[in-house]
Amino acid sequence: MERGSAQATLAVSTVIFALRPDDESGLKTLWLPLVRRTRDPHRDLWALPGGWLPADEELAAAAGRTLRETTDLSPRYLEQLYTFGDIDRSPGLRVVSVVYWALVRSEVAERASVGENVRWFAADQLPPLAFDHNRIVEYALWRLRTKVEYARIAHAFLGDTFTLAQLRDVHEAVLQKALDPANFRRSMESSGTLISTDQHVAGARHRPARLYRYDDRANEHDPPGPTR
Amino acid sequence: MERGSAQATLAVSTVIFALRPDDESGLKTLWLPLVRRTRDPHRDLWALPGGWLPADEELAAAAGRTLRETTDLSPRYLEQLYTFGDIDRSPGLRVVSVVYWALVRSEVAERASVGENVRWFAADQLPPLAFDHNRIVEYALWRLRTKVEYARIAHAFLGDTFTLAQLRDVHEAVLQKALDPANFRRSMESSGTLISTDQHVAGARHRPARLYRYDDRANEHDPPGPTR
Repeated sequence: MERGSAQATLAVSTVIFALRPDDESGLKTLWLPLVRRTRDPHRDLWALPGGWLPADEELAAAAGRTLRETTDLSPRYLEQLYTFGDIDRSPGLRVVSVVYWALVRSEVAERASVGENVRWFAADQLPPLAFDHNRIVEYALWRLRTKVEYARIAHAFLGDTFTLAQLRDVHEAVLQKALDPANFRRSMESSGTLISTDQHVAGARHRPARLYRYDDRANEHDPPGPTR
Repeated sequence: MERGSAQATLAVSTVIFALRPDDESGLKTLWLPLVRRTRDPHRDLWALPGGWLPADEELAAAAGRTLRETTDLSPRYLEQLYTFGDIDRSPGLRVVSVVYWALVRSEVAERASVGENVRWFAADQLPPLAFDHNRIVEYALWRLRTKVEYARIAHAFLGDTFTLAQLRDVHEAVLQKALDPANFRRSMESSGTLISTDQHVAGARHRPARLYRYDDRANEHDPPGPTR
């Protein structure tokens, strides 16, 4: 193969979602870390963590390294989200960005560094971001809202077992609307995807809440290579 | 932003699946077009249609153009499948390939050019391909087999309306196994995703078969931007 003469440049970026209570409403909300740009173009705008792809570094490794360098976050697993490559997405230079994403538990998110140039934002209250990064976050939110991934979403945010109230928190944060607890319970119990365990957690004010887990068959379709 | 010094090179490739009867068994099978390489590396091996990304061409446009140039195929719509970028996937040069895919009806596939250097292969009987292209096809097949996309798959292969027998052909080709007609009918009718129409097609030997279409709600989760 010959290398083409005109070249696009490769970059990587990451979208990291965590579930956190909103300061004002107390409701669980999706948050993500952003980095303030200290260089042109788009100096001083907030952007997704990321950087250039060195020729000798794997895509996911570069995404993980640039995320760690800017935010101290190291999710166990980054999944490829999508590749954004519109000609005009970066001024003056054709940049194709391979975007990775992860969902992290709040304990992990709390270990992230914050400061003048790194901050967490509520995903539904973002300022205008650098480049096409608002569009990238919108696409990630859309992917999150497609129901097919709820089993993975709940697992990433909550761990192996969870109460129905915790699972409802996840659905409410993703859908950005309140759900009726009784309807939610009926819908989950009839979905065939949840398995009831014998364990309970003691609630502060209520009777102990039963713990559930997702049926493992929900994971039988993991891909054979690329996203593992 | 500064451009990194060491650079990876961007390419695009396409995986085009069509449903065709297998010559020997007569069963519907997934086929895809491949192009024989006329240059090193991997000269004479079969490869997915594709080429370099020019700096002034959109990703999907480059995928469509290289597909058209090699096979004469022009699917109405190419969807981004995944970006493959392993350091060692191409000898001597770091190549990151953004792979697009499409499902085409057999009428479309029949208009494709074939010749010494372009040929259709059964997806489950591929020779060793150039680069990591066997792995790319495997990944595409995996994506096809995740049930969540059946509505789109059937629509792409069959059009707006179809008989249950035609839909079973699609499922059998994707799953690569025979399905019991009665069980399949029960499963589809209870799935809540199919709508029965008043139309029928006259079967050669049987009573007229009813036409079905997918419930439009199956498409409500189309992405807001990137993959449309």
